[in-house]
Amino acid sequence: MDVLIPAGTMIRPDDRGVLYGEGVFETLLVEGGRARLRAAHLARMARSAALLGIPLPDPAPLVDEAERAWPEGEGALRLVCTAGPAGGEPVLYATVSSVPPAVIAQRATGVRVVTAEAGVSHRRPAWSLTTAKTISYAANLAARRARAEEMLWISTEGYALESPTAGLVWLADGAWHGVAGGGVLPSVTAAAILSEIGGNYSSVTVPELHRSDGAWLVSALRGVAEVTELDGRERARSPWTGRLQEIIGRAGA
Amino acid sequence: MDVLIPAGTMIRPDDRGVLYGEGVFETLLVEGGRARLRAAHLARMARSAALLGIPLPDPAPLVDEAERAWPEGEGALRLVCTAGPAGGEPVLYATVSSVPPAVIAQRATGVRVVTAEAGVSHRRPAWSLTTAKTISYAANLAARRARAEEMLWISTEGYALESPTAGLVWLADGAWHGVAGGGVLPSVTAAAILSEIGGNYSSVTVPELHRSDGAWLVSALRGVAEVTELDGRERARSPWTGRLQEIIGRAGA
Repeated sequence: MDVLIPAGTMIRPDDRGVLYGEGVFETLLVEGGRARLRAAHLARMARSAALLGIPLPDPAPLVDEAERAWPEGEGALRLVCTAGPAGGEPVLYATVSSVPPAVIAQRATGVRVVTAEAGVSHRRPAWSLTTAKTISYAANLAARRARAEEMLWISTEGYALESPTAGLVWLADGAWHGVAGGGVLPSVTAAAILSEIGGNYSSVTVPELHRSDGAWLVSALRGVAEVTELDGRERARSPWTGRLQEIIGRAGA
Repeated sequence: MDVLIPAGTMIRPDDRGVLYGEGVFETLLVEGGRARLRAAHLARMARSAALLGIPLPDPAPLVDEAERAWPEGEGALRLVCTAGPAGGEPVLYATVSSVPPAVIAQRATGVRVVTAEAGVSHRRPAWSLTTAKTISYAANLAARRARAEEMLWISTEGYALESPTAGLVWLADGAWHGVAGGGVLPSVTAAAILSEIGGNYSSVTVPELHRSDGAWLVSALRGVAEVTELDGRERARSPWTGRLQEIIGRAGA
């Protein structure tokens, strides 16, 4: 954490964010003093907070300040809003740090991906909060630690869901797709790509992914990382990766 | 929060407990200056921390201090250990508060319970951390808010799992049971009851629960609460509730 806004922010030990993971967050890429896809990230944060019943203060002034604080190169901007103590106010703050080199490297090298039964159904109830970006995130990180490769979760019905920290985009028979439903977190980066390139939301099984003409993990910091290997099977590199990265690079606020 | 140990504890905004819900907790009932089932709760906290890879400091001195700080009546002791900032030390603290009257009331009135498809399989992977008591707990509380009744989660295979904040114990054909496997959090209270009364771990469907001779939600603060209504069907009161409460009341440290 190189920048903290407001400076000196500390969290009370009875904040429901610490006690129960009741809070929401967003991660944005700051590039040249501009937070990429800012409006879409702030809209998702508002949706997440609404799902948890947290009255989210307006994060815009914090994003402005973060952009000013990180005028050069790339930065990882994290917005966090905890629910606050019972009967108290939510706590909103922002941090900016360097983007981990390993994340940046994935844009060029792509990612090796293994599929994993998530043990969850494509039909998950609303209270499971899987469509909100909550700070109850420990299982996502435990999944990342479990394997050297990136993990792609598969529902009990056999459909791809998402990665612990990324969404999925694929190209099949000339058509672009992102994952719809299944309780996945709506990916801001996938939405930006599909909107620009003219794709739609659908579902995909692992055999269908193997046969697809391209598959990518997408998220704010990594941007677009091609799936170069799926369950140990190497995939032909797609000529589209550069184009997708260009789309994201030009994405507005 | 009436007591905080160590006094003045605050959590850094880059603590992984706040950022990602990476932390563990336990709730214990303090009664007459004694934390009930203390050893079993501390053992579960150690297991939870191990599952998250958090080097848990010894909580025993905090429990001692909490017991001294709450010598009369009932108190809710919460032990929390957050993972700390990246590369930093975990943060362990304790709070003691009054037990909510609504929780105490359940011991006498019992609970009305509705079953709910959890959208999760009986077979959940280890990295889902469902057998650890983590502070990534937002979905549990969202589930509680979703219904006026207590919720009992059912797996996609049709077996009862647990309640958002309680375990399940039932009596069928003269035999006592608790829920085994399915990725449920091992209930300290259920284990104490089954050990004393001579029960075992098994699995149960909703129709089997309807036919059972008794069903109870059990947890540290509520102790034993009889299921008086299941999915809108009233159940005959069991003569065993008082006996189970007695067992828990006599449970050692």
